[in-house]
Amino acid sequence: MTLVSDLGEFGLIERIRGRKSIQDEDLVVGIGDDCAVVRRGPVLEVLTTDCLVGGTHFEEGWLDMNDIGWKALAVNVSDVAAVGGLPRHALVTLFLPEGFSAKQVDDLYSGMEECGDVMGVSVVGGDIVRTVGPFAISVTLSGVCERDQLVLRSGARQDDIIVVTGTLGQASVGMRLLREGWSSGEAPAEECVKRFRRPVPRLNEARAIVQTLLPSSMIDISDGLLSDLWHIMDSSGVGAVLDADCIPVGDCVMDYFGGDREEALSQAMAGGEDYELLFTINSRRESDLAEVGRGLGVELTLIGKITAKGRGVKLASDGAERELGRAGFDHFGPAVK
Amino acid sequence: MTLVSDLGEFGLIERIRGRKSIQDEDLVVGIGDDCAVVRRGPVLEVLTTDCLVGGTHFEEGWLDMNDIGWKALAVNVSDVAAVGGLPRHALVTLFLPEGFSAKQVDDLYSGMEECGDVMGVSVVGGDIVRTVGPFAISVTLSGVCERDQLVLRSGARQDDIIVVTGTLGQASVGMRLLREGWSSGEAPAEECVKRFRRPVPRLNEARAIVQTLLPSSMIDISDGLLSDLWHIMDSSGVGAVLDADCIPVGDCVMDYFGGDREEALSQAMAGGEDYELLFTINSRRESDLAEVGRGLGVELTLIGKITAKGRGVKLASDGAERELGRAGFDHFGPAVK
Repeated sequence: MTLVSDLGEFGLIERIRGRKSIQDEDLVVGIGDDCAVVRRGPVLEVLTTDCLVGGTHFEEGWLDMNDIGWKALAVNVSDVAAVGGLPRHALVTLFLPEGFSAKQVDDLYSGMEECGDVMGVSVVGGDIVRTVGPFAISVTLSGVCERDQLVLRSGARQDDIIVVTGTLGQASVGMRLLREGWSSGEAPAEECVKRFRRPVPRLNEARAIVQTLLPSSMIDISDGLLSDLWHIMDSSGVGAVLDADCIPVGDCVMDYFGGDREEALSQAMAGGEDYELLFTINSRRESDLAEVGRGLGVELTLIGKITAKGRGVKLASDGAERELGRAGFDHFGPAVK
Repeated sequence: MTLVSDLGEFGLIERIRGRKSIQDEDLVVGIGDDCAVVRRGPVLEVLTTDCLVGGTHFEEGWLDMNDIGWKALAVNVSDVAAVGGLPRHALVTLFLPEGFSAKQVDDLYSGMEECGDVMGVSVVGGDIVRTVGPFAISVTLSGVCERDQLVLRSGARQDDIIVVTGTLGQASVGMRLLREGWSSGEAPAEECVKRFRRPVPRLNEARAIVQTLLPSSMIDISDGLLSDLWHIMDSSGVGAVLDADCIPVGDCVMDYFGGDREEALSQAMAGGEDYELLFTINSRRESDLAEVGRGLGVELTLIGKITAKGRGVKLASDGAERELGRAGFDHFGPAVK
């Protein structure tokens, strides 16, 4: 008997995706991107769903209800941003164990509303159910997308350059700190924990990037830089080479590893939940990066180049190239962090 | 400290609904109906979500994975049908405990696809997550609705007549039979269990009813006739009187109670999961009921009348009227079945 844990999360998704071809004239993009995309009359609609489950995504005491509310909505906003969409309406399902208080529900909604106010999203419905299991929250988000602004994982082409927003590794270090019993302390660690607790999706940045840099592919970094880069490679049928010296590692990540760049880099590449944008653009637009980044107030870093199909993902460092596997967070495979 | 269980499911929904008024120009209907309704350019979109959780909605052995897949989608289709909408695209979140097999996931999807093929719905995305709790499946369904065919809970008016499709009580008797250890047996009991396991949403019926009978309000019976009638009463600000002799009780329900009509009636009114339609129409259209029902191949039964606000819900029987409370299935209140 094949267990789900034998297939791993992505293997299972592939299995589901391969079941049958969907005959649906309104379907533009189905399973396998950040969002599903469907036609609604003259409008494109984007749909995505993501959940947070106690004991899986966080442990007791890591997040207060306010943070959970914020984060549950934010991670979905990030998926909509990653296809060039504008998030609009959310449905929320709460799985509540015995003894859950009304105040906790209030705090959850406060966190969601706080995020929704910033991101232009309204919570318009949902479902509430009792569970004998852990607390969980599942959010489904719908939004709209102009036809000429839809960006999928599948459009990367050989010689495109690979760009990432912001810095990487903080959120996953924040999770490690919480696991190690961190409660509060110095500023750099605090910053990592905050990135884990309250990720800020790059919505405005995504919209601006789509309009100015015309990316050929884009994804948000939720599973980890490497894992999400592989998603683009697989969908686009290309390879990639990354420049180890260029990958933007967060300061608090360097701090956490006592300045060991190799360790910090590995964390920045494999740790997930950064919710930064990873995208590819035509190399002719490289000269626009600095100005667009300045306008947005965010670092846009060129980290590598798209190569031919079958070349895999390589890491260039000191003139040599190392082969990189798919190590990222896989929900059913062996833990990698 | 107020617990969620003190508020009950509907109390909690009211609390969430009352948090703040949503300022959203695209929002037509928010929390508190069968679906949320939003504008997407010139189109109305309907959105709903409903989940099935092991240990809450069913126990080990009551449903195979195929049935769970069918049912998880069907209960959402029923909500879309109840507002006059056409269901189109579903997102599915699976919460999988340790040891879940790939075959079980295949069976779940087979059940969903079977239902989707009948109802015109495609599964276009979702999320899969590991849980330390019980198996659960959450489905979010989006669909479309013509502006002039949207039917809400809030439109019932005094002197409208109250109509229900099909017969009631089977599914909840089916659940009782399963709880009592029923495995397989005579035809009437089998029919009840089947109604619990594989509810068939009244999608075509809803569309036809909306077009021919112009209902002033409509809801699908998921919580139970009485509970769902109260939802209409509360939203519309009206009362109702039901005729005890007219309420269509399923044959297998009568059988289960050994022909005791009073017991069977009580089950038919309080037991949930019938997924029949409950709607109100102008009394002038009473004469059209029989013909529309014949055309659809389903019994449309006049069961009562809308009365003035504040009169509550009454049950008329043998010339006397009894006051009826809200007893239906409440996910956090004391169990009523």
